[in-house]
Amino acid sequence: MNRMNDLLPLAPGMAPVDAMREMGVAARAAARRLAAATAAEKRRALHAAAGALRAAAASILEANAVDVARARAAGNDEAFIDRLRLTEQSVAGMADGVAQVADLPDPVGMLADCQVRPSGIELARMRVPLGVIGMIYESRPNVTADAAALCTMSGNACILRGGSEALDSNRAIHAAMVAGLTGAGLPERTVQLVPTADRAAVGAMLAMTEFIDILIPRGGKQLIARVAEASRIPVLKHLDGICHVYVDSGADLDMAVRIADNAKTQRYSTCNTMETLLVARAEAAAFLPRIGAIYAAKGVEMRACAESKAVLDRAALPGVVAATDADFHTEYLAPIVSIRVVDGLDAALAHIDRYGSRHTDAIVTRDDAHAERFLREVDSASVMVNASTRFADGFEFGLGAEIGISTDKLHARGPVGLMGLTSEKWIVRGHGEVRG
Amino acid sequence: MNRMNDLLPLAPGMAPVDAMREMGVAARAAARRLAAATAAEKRRALHAAAGALRAAAASILEANAVDVARARAAGNDEAFIDRLRLTEQSVAGMADGVAQVADLPDPVGMLADCQVRPSGIELARMRVPLGVIGMIYESRPNVTADAAALCTMSGNACILRGGSEALDSNRAIHAAMVAGLTGAGLPERTVQLVPTADRAAVGAMLAMTEFIDILIPRGGKQLIARVAEASRIPVLKHLDGICHVYVDSGADLDMAVRIADNAKTQRYSTCNTMETLLVARAEAAAFLPRIGAIYAAKGVEMRACAESKAVLDRAALPGVVAATDADFHTEYLAPIVSIRVVDGLDAALAHIDRYGSRHTDAIVTRDDAHAERFLREVDSASVMVNASTRFADGFEFGLGAEIGISTDKLHARGPVGLMGLTSEKWIVRGHGEVRG
Repeated sequence: MNRMNDLLPLAPGMAPVDAMREMGVAARAAARRLAAATAAEKRRALHAAAGALRAAAASILEANAVDVARARAAGNDEAFIDRLRLTEQSVAGMADGVAQVADLPDPVGMLADCQVRPSGIELARMRVPLGVIGMIYESRPNVTADAAALCTMSGNACILRGGSEALDSNRAIHAAMVAGLTGAGLPERTVQLVPTADRAAVGAMLAMTEFIDILIPRGGKQLIARVAEASRIPVLKHLDGICHVYVDSGADLDMAVRIADNAKTQRYSTCNTMETLLVARAEAAAFLPRIGAIYAAKGVEMRACAESKAVLDRAALPGVVAATDADFHTEYLAPIVSIRVVDGLDAALAHIDRYGSRHTDAIVTRDDAHAERFLREVDSASVMVNASTRFADGFEFGLGAEIGISTDKLHARGPVGLMGLTSEKWIVRGHGEVRG
Repeated sequence: MNRMNDLLPLAPGMAPVDAMREMGVAARAAARRLAAATAAEKRRALHAAAGALRAAAASILEANAVDVARARAAGNDEAFIDRLRLTEQSVAGMADGVAQVADLPDPVGMLADCQVRPSGIELARMRVPLGVIGMIYESRPNVTADAAALCTMSGNACILRGGSEALDSNRAIHAAMVAGLTGAGLPERTVQLVPTADRAAVGAMLAMTEFIDILIPRGGKQLIARVAEASRIPVLKHLDGICHVYVDSGADLDMAVRIADNAKTQRYSTCNTMETLLVARAEAAAFLPRIGAIYAAKGVEMRACAESKAVLDRAALPGVVAATDADFHTEYLAPIVSIRVVDGLDAALAHIDRYGSRHTDAIVTRDDAHAERFLREVDSASVMVNASTRFADGFEFGLGAEIGISTDKLHARGPVGLMGLTSEKWIVRGHGEVRG
């Protein structure tokens, strides 16, 4: 944390809580105008913002260099610096992302279930923006552009509070986007960035129930848990991605190897990465040595239950250790996998119910009845048959972009795109009908 | 509050918090079985429950007589007794209501937006139950049967906590329904009634975040506000129904009179009743004396702004008093109406934004552009053109039944039926696809 930035006032002479309320009032006013903006207006404005980002690439990189130097001086590790660092290519990618969002279907104004009721009234549900979105995030400065684009396209005003470590980068990105958006006629307060690292601003933000309709925290589990605990504003979130692949008895083992490999090793740090591999007892002897050899070759540590450890040990594979109960509760986000042999489908369902995080779980099976039961009974945001958990993603699901993933059941669930930033209201067109 | 009932233990020898947790664990187990129940199983069970209610009519009325006698002895007024009292007819109506819910379309398992993605995976969203519903309600014992039926049909287990004043009635209704449901093969804990008026049970219920997925309070505003403030479980609710009718300049005044009459006087005590009548200045002189004469004849007190009061006073109508600012913030639920003259559409929109409760608002207009702006810009759960606000209702909207009305924007909004008691998860059927 950088003391100089911590001491930057939000607005000259204003206490953080007052400055944040002022931002809240401005966001509400902008939201009213944005809700009435047409798809064409929003598209034009976002393409202008993308252009402004491209034009401001040099100043964004300059600001980013300040953040990187500060992070380095503060002794942060290379992984931290990597998340923070922007390049010409990543700034161009950011601008492309904003332009892509500009071309997504506009959910606002969509009508569903239009019908004439027996009373004569014409009834429908109309999709409308939520109002004001509060984003609280860490490290990666590209979230500033992504979130701003998604909120704007869905007709919402937003208040962004990025990490203090990326403050200079975020300011430069925000300034460029606002220039683009307002140049194209959208309200100046469409996208607001909390211009300080003062933590009191976050506290004030969490308490702004009357000005913020939904909070979306992005970052480490601690940040997300803190936001959810401290605020009475609804929070779109997932805390853990403890995802499972269950290899059913009778499964196509070539397919099972391919999926268990991809789900674990294609990327270690994502929330849809498999953390626990469950194997039906009937397949353990044939399957575990094959997948174990791949994990061993890729340097993946295997934390195995007694039964799976015995099988893997017989195959003389390196990197096999005994799993504890805590391992099955752990999201590693690293080259580590928990492995457990189970009796069969019922035991797999019970394990996922007990240890899972309701994010994404998959079964590899050739049994249709098992596939159906797995799809029905696993109470997770994404449930899959014969596919890698890595598909649980806004782009792979065709949402065009993703503002977050929710493991809660209310409102949006799973990968959340533009649609999840909207609500529906009932609209009635009558001809003078009254109720009898 | 009846001391004898307050002292009834939840379960022999158990502290309320432990007894409630035991109910929570049982509800979770029942919910898992219910989620897998077919529509046919649920229909059969609810028809059995309806039959059991009919068969138990005598014992339900006997239990209700105990509640009524106790309420009378405690000095409650006739309105209170009326809400509490059951008759042969109302018990039969309750059973009919349960049978009607049994015949509604089952939302569970419905698939939406089925598609094949470029990766080859088949993607859809599957509708699933929420899990466990907590209902907290007052007075009317019929809520016990209604809520139990809606929760069961949507595949959810429920924990019902009715008012202490209706405890004997609720127990008799609950016993009959459980006999019907379990006789038809559903789990015994599908519907649980908190068997005591001990207030510690409510406190324990509000804290059961791991066992209850959504709380639905039904009753007075104070009860609902208390539930929403005290619990971190999501709450489906509306606090106020401050509904508006705006008579636009150029409106069909015959239609405006009919709608403003119906919206206010068809029933005074419902949340979709109009509380404030807004009139464009251009129509005030022609419209107000006509609607004023109707209100006066029906004994409706008119709390009028200075301008509307001047018009109504010239017409020498009784029951006209000066409105205060507080009147426009008030849900009367009584033969009282606030009246205000406004410049036109923009002023009406601003008034509704400032004073409304985001429940239901209507415009009477002949101007299509005004109708569209009203539909788009009024940020309420139900927005209407040329129809009475009284149509904002689960039955009128074709939901078949209504478990509550929500003025929040997330999850369910407006009248909530079976669909609002469900969630969607993503399901993927693959053929061995992995991510590249």
